[in-house]
Amino acid sequence: MNKIKQLQNYLKEQSVDAAFITDPYNVFYVSGFKSNPHERLLGVMVFAEAEPFLICPKMEIPDAKNAGWTGEIVGHEDTQNSMEILYKTAQSRGIDLKTMAVEKAHMTVERYEALLSFFSSLSIAQLDKQLNAMRVIKDDAELQILREAAALADYAIEVAARTIKEGITEIEVMTEIELALKKRGVTHMSFDTTVLTGDRAASPHGKTGQYKLKQGDLVLFDLGVVHKGYCSDITRTLALGEPNEEQKEVYDVVYRSEMAALEAVKPGVTAAELDQISRQVIADAGYGDYFTHRLGHGLGIDVHEFPSIHGQNTMKMEKGMVFTLEPGIYVPGKVGVRIEDDVAVTADGYEVLTKYPKELQIINN
Amino acid sequence: MNKIKQLQNYLKEQSVDAAFITDPYNVFYVSGFKSNPHERLLGVMVFAEAEPFLICPKMEIPDAKNAGWTGEIVGHEDTQNSMEILYKTAQSRGIDLKTMAVEKAHMTVERYEALLSFFSSLSIAQLDKQLNAMRVIKDDAELQILREAAALADYAIEVAARTIKEGITEIEVMTEIELALKKRGVTHMSFDTTVLTGDRAASPHGKTGQYKLKQGDLVLFDLGVVHKGYCSDITRTLALGEPNEEQKEVYDVVYRSEMAALEAVKPGVTAAELDQISRQVIADAGYGDYFTHRLGHGLGIDVHEFPSIHGQNTMKMEKGMVFTLEPGIYVPGKVGVRIEDDVAVTADGYEVLTKYPKELQIINN
Repeated sequence: MNKIKQLQNYLKEQSVDAAFITDPYNVFYVSGFKSNPHERLLGVMVFAEAEPFLICPKMEIPDAKNAGWTGEIVGHEDTQNSMEILYKTAQSRGIDLKTMAVEKAHMTVERYEALLSFFSSLSIAQLDKQLNAMRVIKDDAELQILREAAALADYAIEVAARTIKEGITEIEVMTEIELALKKRGVTHMSFDTTVLTGDRAASPHGKTGQYKLKQGDLVLFDLGVVHKGYCSDITRTLALGEPNEEQKEVYDVVYRSEMAALEAVKPGVTAAELDQISRQVIADAGYGDYFTHRLGHGLGIDVHEFPSIHGQNTMKMEKGMVFTLEPGIYVPGKVGVRIEDDVAVTADGYEVLTKYPKELQIINN
Repeated sequence: MNKIKQLQNYLKEQSVDAAFITDPYNVFYVSGFKSNPHERLLGVMVFAEAEPFLICPKMEIPDAKNAGWTGEIVGHEDTQNSMEILYKTAQSRGIDLKTMAVEKAHMTVERYEALLSFFSSLSIAQLDKQLNAMRVIKDDAELQILREAAALADYAIEVAARTIKEGITEIEVMTEIELALKKRGVTHMSFDTTVLTGDRAASPHGKTGQYKLKQGDLVLFDLGVVHKGYCSDITRTLALGEPNEEQKEVYDVVYRSEMAALEAVKPGVTAAELDQISRQVIADAGYGDYFTHRLGHGLGIDVHEFPSIHGQNTMKMEKGMVFTLEPGIYVPGKVGVRIEDDVAVTADGYEVLTKYPKELQIINN
């Protein structure tokens, strides 16, 4: 309930009476209960000056308790008006609610209007920035989960390295990787696992397919797992047999680009500076036109979350932030290389969560 | 652009000047362009009396054209205010916009406020019901795609039937099924493939796991594919070796329950009537307490879409509607059986899209 306390302090500071959280990721963040209620109402109501409650479909109450929520839980059934139940439960706290903060970037207009039809004299504030500001700094427990998630991503690349061979298809390699993870208890990947071979890795539209690997291919893997509600995200580009000079050169440039950004990570550096450091290495090598995306993105409950690591983001890094660094070079029709790590900002530098070697691995299976 | 014309007629009837569609499923429905823009703006603006346009991230313009959208496309980059671009493009039509319909069940409050900050004197109407009403009736082209999607689901069950054997785990069976589908070009399942064995199929919280199949188990498969943007959804419960009397009895009741509902499908019957017919068979057999969910749900671009087939829905079935019928009996700790088909309403009855046999299949592998 530590996160609830933090939110209550924020509400008091801002003179806001309550916060109503309905984004399932944010509900998980403050309550420990992860659920996708689809169109049904799931939320946590936090009051500046009263006990919070969780509202969810009645059949999910046992799951919410099992997830560790020890506060009040209010259930609703499909035949009931869940917003009315929300209103009555809030009223039962005996507080004169004048202002409520909601996630404007998540709540639908339909739900907003339903909310206001009950809480008719309420003034609505936005809660998105505060939740972003809280979620962006990972505490020790979150960091430990992210380390475990990253270790599973490392393991996936190990499986990839021992699976690739002449003649196997991208889809078969992907299936072997995911099967190995399932045997370790992974139930969900954080996004569609990508296996792209040769110049297919240079296409922004490349999708894992029936392509058969051959000697001399570079094979790009981009994948991650969901572990205890948190995501990992790793990219490695492996060489199947001896790479040619161009492949080696492009790999070396991407490697130096990521290392340069990585070594600059510490509290106070901006996202834009990291992006520029990484981009400069690639530009200096003459491949500037082929690094076509941002350097990275925040990582946590969502695989792409706040903050975005791009050239216009002047946000300063702080201890506890976790994000990806993933420079790449994509020369159409020729070669595609990306290296991606999950990185945490420490008190005086960085910790790399993903530990699979970044140096070019030449695989002879 | 047939769907656009339908929308334009609706707007004229309702005296609404424009409709702005941003739910990615609805964008696909009216434009043929399927994309997940995350927080970026993707939408189709349809005018009662002017040419529509599509707005999307600039890098997606080629994909939108390839998808068959022949109208105007307006791109935006991350450094631009996409709502301003939307506003200016709408203004360029030279129409005095007084009312606009939006999907209130999809649009976030943040986007709604951004929209109103530009279109400041606009009156907003809801578009959700009209889009539901259009999407619920499938045209011939959509029906053909749904047949193909259902055939892939049938194939998945065929693979399941030849894969199950003593000692194989649920996860291994799931992996074989998904690999076989990938080889036929399936890139996405419509939801997490479920393989549940024995009394595990009777638990509402059952998840495909490391359980090893054994002779005498009933094995429940619930799965579907996304094919050309449309979903299938099938459930079959197979017997690995000779079933016992209780398993046979429960299966027979579920089978008769689904057949009774199926044979009642025709234009004019209500969703509630179908649910009641199905439920009555199960209640008459003494298992009424063990059929714990609605009979089915609409099926199309989304795997769970309008309408819901439950006991309180008095909506009348019409030609072109497609939905699932999926009665089940779940006796905790003992046996779980569900049979699910995808069904289309025809002019005088029904067409079953999923064709894998519904009679209990006894597998001796």
